[in-house]
Amino acid sequence: MKKTLIALAALAVTSVASAQSSVTLFGVVDATYAVGNGSIADRTRLHNSGLTSSRFGLRGKEDLGGGLFASFWLEAGMNNDDGSGQASNTNNQAGGATGGGGLTFNRRSTVSLESAWGELRLGRDYTPQFWNLVQYDPFGVVGVGNTLTFTNAITATTTARSSNGIGYILPSNLGGFFGEFQYHMGENLSNAGATADDGDGYGGRIGYAAGPFSVALALSRTDYAAGQVRQNNLGGAYNLGFAKLMAQISKDSAGAADGSGWLVGGQVPVGAGEFRLAVSQYKVEVGATEPRARKLSLGYVHNLSKRTALYATFARVSNSGGATTALNASVTGANQSSTGYDFGLRHSF
Amino acid sequence: MKKTLIALAALAVTSVASAQSSVTLFGVVDATYAVGNGSIADRTRLHNSGLTSSRFGLRGKEDLGGGLFASFWLEAGMNNDDGSGQASNTNNQAGGATGGGGLTFNRRSTVSLESAWGELRLGRDYTPQFWNLVQYDPFGVVGVGNTLTFTNAITATTTARSSNGIGYILPSNLGGFFGEFQYHMGENLSNAGATADDGDGYGGRIGYAAGPFSVALALSRTDYAAGQVRQNNLGGAYNLGFAKLMAQISKDSAGAADGSGWLVGGQVPVGAGEFRLAVSQYKVEVGATEPRARKLSLGYVHNLSKRTALYATFARVSNSGGATTALNASVTGANQSSTGYDFGLRHSF
Amino acid sequence: MKKTLIALAALAVTSVASAQSSVTLFGVVDATYAVGNGSIADRTRLHNSGLTSSRFGLRGKEDLGGGLFASFWLEAGMNNDDGSGQASNTNNQAGGATGGGGLTFNRRSTVSLESAWGELRLGRDYTPQFWNLVQYDPFGVVGVGNTLTFTNAITATTTARSSNGIGYILPSNLGGFFGEFQYHMGENLSNAGATADDGDGYGGRIGYAAGPFSVALALSRTDYAAGQVRQNNLGGAYNLGFAKLMAQISKDSAGAADGSGWLVGGQVPVGAGEFRLAVSQYKVEVGATEPRARKLSLGYVHNLSKRTALYATFARVSNSGGATTALNASVTGANQSSTGYDFGLRHSF
Repeated sequence: MKKTLIALAALAVTSVASAQSSVTLFGVVDATYAVGNGSIADRTRLHNSGLTSSRFGLRGKEDLGGGLFASFWLEAGMNNDDGSGQASNTNNQAGGATGGGGLTFNRRSTVSLESAWGELRLGRDYTPQFWNLVQYDPFGVVGVGNTLTFTNAITATTTARSSNGIGYILPSNLGGFFGEFQYHMGENLSNAGATADDGDGYGGRIGYAAGPFSVALALSRTDYAAGQVRQNNLGGAYNLGFAKLMAQISKDSAGAADGSGWLVGGQVPVGAGEFRLAVSQYKVEVGATEPRARKLSLGYVHNLSKRTALYATFARVSNSGGATTALNASVTGANQSSTGYDFGLRHSF
Repeated sequence: MKKTLIALAALAVTSVASAQSSVTLFGVVDATYAVGNGSIADRTRLHNSGLTSSRFGLRGKEDLGGGLFASFWLEAGMNNDDGSGQASNTNNQAGGATGGGGLTFNRRSTVSLESAWGELRLGRDYTPQFWNLVQYDPFGVVGVGNTLTFTNAITATTTARSSNGIGYILPSNLGGFFGEFQYHMGENLSNAGATADDGDGYGGRIGYAAGPFSVALALSRTDYAAGQVRQNNLGGAYNLGFAKLMAQISKDSAGAADGSGWLVGGQVPVGAGEFRLAVSQYKVEVGATEPRARKLSLGYVHNLSKRTALYATFARVSNSGGATTALNASVTGANQSSTGYDFGLRHSF
Repeated sequence: MKKTLIALAALAVTSVASAQSSVTLFGVVDATYAVGNGSIADRTRLHNSGLTSSRFGLRGKEDLGGGLFASFWLEAGMNNDDGSGQASNTNNQAGGATGGGGLTFNRRSTVSLESAWGELRLGRDYTPQFWNLVQYDPFGVVGVGNTLTFTNAITATTTARSSNGIGYILPSNLGGFFGEFQYHMGENLSNAGATADDGDGYGGRIGYAAGPFSVALALSRTDYAAGQVRQNNLGGAYNLGFAKLMAQISKDSAGAADGSGWLVGGQVPVGAGEFRLAVSQYKVEVGATEPRARKLSLGYVHNLSKRTALYATFARVSNSGGATTALNASVTGANQSSTGYDFGLRHSF
């Protein structure tokens, strides 16, 4: 159920309001009993966002006539286990974090003009390269089972989202082709020397979908004095009907460090539920060391309705080359494994 | 008036939306001219929450069929005198405060499953032991007249609310019996030594209501390396028709310190208004010192509608044994008295 | 379009809900490609609020009967270029800033009682003296073209808004006269010595409007130990039909420093658009130095609808007497000029 607020009173007040115009309140409240076990220390939490990231948002669209639309999207992350908000990053740089306590539209805050030629989108938004990680991970990059190509990526601030961006999204009627491009700014003073371009960057994604099949490639660059960050990936999916298979590979760099990863997995619907399975890996190469983590993820989602689900996820990560990846906020030693699981309730509105 | 947003557009969009499903926006904006006089310094403020705690929230409920419901509740405290938000506490420990500036769902942020067997509630919520203090205080633990069993309690972070909690609330059809139980977590790493259990705790409340009469007992424990915190209380009320009488006693401890308090009072409806009267006391015993404060509270609430009220409250506290309790942010010396009053306007939506 | 949420379900739930009662969600999302050039450093940003200040708010009004109304207004500033919130100031003093990260109702948070005698308004609100700067600036004190009488004013915390205020607004049926008065408090302890009155102040505005003509005078004082702050101004407008002319003068002081400014300008509607022009100046006198900035502003707003507009603004500031005023976050040297422009999209809901 979407909470679209039809502007009833408004119709009496202003005559220009179009029938298509609407504002929608939406949100997700997802709580999980989350356990993490590591060789050094375990942790048990009542945490959030085991299946779907908790959020509160407003979005709306106005029909301007002639095929033109204005729209906006304001979406705040929310830690519903303790009521706190989440941080945003104002300038795509390490020092730009702000807002860790109160409601902050860190997930997305954009205003757009849309037409048959596509969408111009301004503000804080997901990066194009993030979408392949989400679309081609059976766990959607959420919860203890999410892909190592995201959680272990050596890329920094703009891995998932960027601020101060100008985006262009292709229209949806291109015979199966889809794509988007984004330019984002660090907004430094021009006399900042080596750091003048810090946080400036761009990314693009181009893909093709036809029937049960889809594939997409994404490339991106963000400048930092400490070394340019590149995040590139390729993902694909094939829906066999009884199961949807997914795979992705990623190739990142951050200055002298290189990172690469892959995932294979799938989703198997069974009645009102869905099983999920994935194996993912991420390896870093920085000088002589090559820490590598590999993860097995198993999950089951039981849908009580379109909006509400119970879920259980189990994951186990094995480390080598000195890696210390641990799950659900536990701590594990070099080359030791870690396990974690989530039992949760997700409700959206 | 409740702002229940029936999902009109949604009915056209998704066919699974149940007629019982709804999302409600709600809030309270309460402003008070608040004066506090103490022996050392006075203070005059345009403050908030003299009658009802100011807040902004969203809550909703979905009918899942078969007597099962999913629901959520997100409620943020709000300082409407200056526009700022309030802090939450992420881990039930001293260092967990966050969010003092922006909108934070510190008052409550929960997701629930409800059935004929009761309610399972996950997230940040009121503690069971807090409810007796609220229900059996004529001033509802709000404003200058509120009970010393709350304001002076030696218990710490989880006195009123806890984060990371798993709660169970009994169904309402138990022949007058009601109750709830809550387990909350500090979420520390298991190798944190003496502080590994800091912030872990539980509380329960069981009561009985029949006609004009109700009584409830609450017990709770939260662990801290500095000493376990215990907060226990018993309250009751009897409605004579022309007046509702209330009483409560509390017995707390925090490590080596003990605290105990009591309140007697009542509410007397008169036309569109209500008079309120209470005497409360709280005494601390820590080593040889026994600071004690006693408070007389008098109030009148004039309801302009169900949603809007004007109110006036007067309170006077007398200190002994070295106590320095002062009202409305004034400062008073040891064993000196303090007076305070509120004149305010409360509007809810 | 206003998002007035008629309480449909509520009508079934409570019978006291008046037909006039409503709660409205509203907001502005304004993004601008903002460039600033100065002699020392330039800056390019995807910024917010080039035409209208971005915001998110809730407001509502309840008909209490007998010509009496209760109302509230909660409005949060919003940096939609990066998703972050804005700071409020809790005590009208330098140390009172809070909330820079999360949604904070810093723009306005008030509760009111309204009748034929006027409005009593409690909380954080615009100061009376701010309104002349807004009403008589063709750019409404927003964006790169806004008036120097605001941006360069030597007054401090309460230049635009104050917290902890008690306001009174005259009713609108006084034959063209309008006015308001505000008293705001710093809420310090009475034994704070020289700073006991810091942040206490008051302001008033009185004006007259008839047909195409309006004029208003505002005076204000806020106390600080460092020196009383005075902010006074006078503004007027005349609508010629093809153009609306505006002018304002300001006279401020802050301890030993004096400031004075003026603006002349106008708005010229052309079809669905509007041209804007202004020249403004602000001069500071502190000891022997007299830094002065003068600004030329040119803008065009193209309305795609009542809610959505594209806009372009150009401004150039020239400095003398040692002034270093720079536009759009650029940096310029003493007595050097600076230019800035905005290209933006403003959408309101």
